[in-house]
Amino acid sequence: MKLYDGGRAPNPRRVRIFLAEKGMTVPMETVDLGRLEHKSQAFTALNPLQRVPVLVLDDGTVITESIAICRYFEGLRPDPPLFGRGGTEQALVEMWNRRIELDLYAAVSAVFRHLHPAMSGMEEQVPQWGEVNKPRVFAFLSLLDEELRDRMFVAGARFSVADITGLVAVDFMRPARLIVPDDLVHLRRWHEQVAARPSARA
Amino acid sequence: MKLYDGGRAPNPRRVRIFLAEKGMTVPMETVDLGRLEHKSQAFTALNPLQRVPVLVLDDGTVITESIAICRYFEGLRPDPPLFGRGGTEQALVEMWNRRIELDLYAAVSAVFRHLHPAMSGMEEQVPQWGEVNKPRVFAFLSLLDEELRDRMFVAGARFSVADITGLVAVDFMRPARLIVPDDLVHLRRWHEQVAARPSARA
Repeated sequence: MKLYDGGRAPNPRRVRIFLAEKGMTVPMETVDLGRLEHKSQAFTALNPLQRVPVLVLDDGTVITESIAICRYFEGLRPDPPLFGRGGTEQALVEMWNRRIELDLYAAVSAVFRHLHPAMSGMEEQVPQWGEVNKPRVFAFLSLLDEELRDRMFVAGARFSVADITGLVAVDFMRPARLIVPDDLVHLRRWHEQVAARPSARA
Repeated sequence: MKLYDGGRAPNPRRVRIFLAEKGMTVPMETVDLGRLEHKSQAFTALNPLQRVPVLVLDDGTVITESIAICRYFEGLRPDPPLFGRGGTEQALVEMWNRRIELDLYAAVSAVFRHLHPAMSGMEEQVPQWGEVNKPRVFAFLSLLDEELRDRMFVAGARFSVADITGLVAVDFMRPARLIVPDDLVHLRRWHEQVAARPSARA
């Protein structure tokens, strides 16, 4: 088994945090995104979509997409469960992970990709699309703040993969030049808490 | 249990096809999106993100996001498995479902939302963003066509939720005014096949 990792990029970090929470280690190779190694012929043969992370199993099976990789690890080592326990909790973890991906992470990514000067060579930038996404980030953060008033973690009383996606999305706001408003005290409490876990340094 | 459905919109259709494949029926209430019922106070109390579908369990638990709802149904009725069997197959179904969502469905949606005149009142349209997404649709369709050369379904030899997402995404090309190129013969073979299943009329 080998995990093609991508250094500081947010999706590879999701998988590293997941592994750290599971107490698992997997042989890794870092793909240098700055040098466009993910666009190389060798890497494209692994993932035609030219994205990290990629997990290659010993039989040669290639698994891409961070959450698909995390789910594979969940199967290998079920404890602690990070995708929920039982049907209802699993559905709520899936729901919150997707809400954060669709309404926060995707919006922060759009701001970064379409407005950051460093991305101008990597992306066909549409600055207006970046601008449209800024208020979406703050609208969702407010909603999440309200939710976190009454519970410890994003999807309920237990830490889950939805907290990992949330942490990575909020931390991605910094390169996107967005700041969590001071008055979102529940969100800030949650962020401090998850950022203080040893896995967050992965 | 009650499912808030949204008529012809693609996400509610994903859940209806899933239920039909499982042979399950669930009490439904249609939310009239044309009349903006999903923006009403009553519906917003169920889903602050104002999207269909929404599943409300008998204990009042609210589950949103199509795939979270489908996964809940998979737990209730595991056969036939539509999220894969065993760790590797489950990871590959998750991977393909996400690839289709991110690289096809999201791109088709962007074309529809940002370029269709009917959406001008519903969305802050960024026509350039719609245009940027058109070539992405065709690039992914070509990739998928190649994949379908050697296998029956999107994620392997068996029908899965990734085929449901694929069918809905390809059918969504019509209102987005996009046409599947004639030369993508493997993709067309697959589409004919999944569109001919009784569930596709759900």
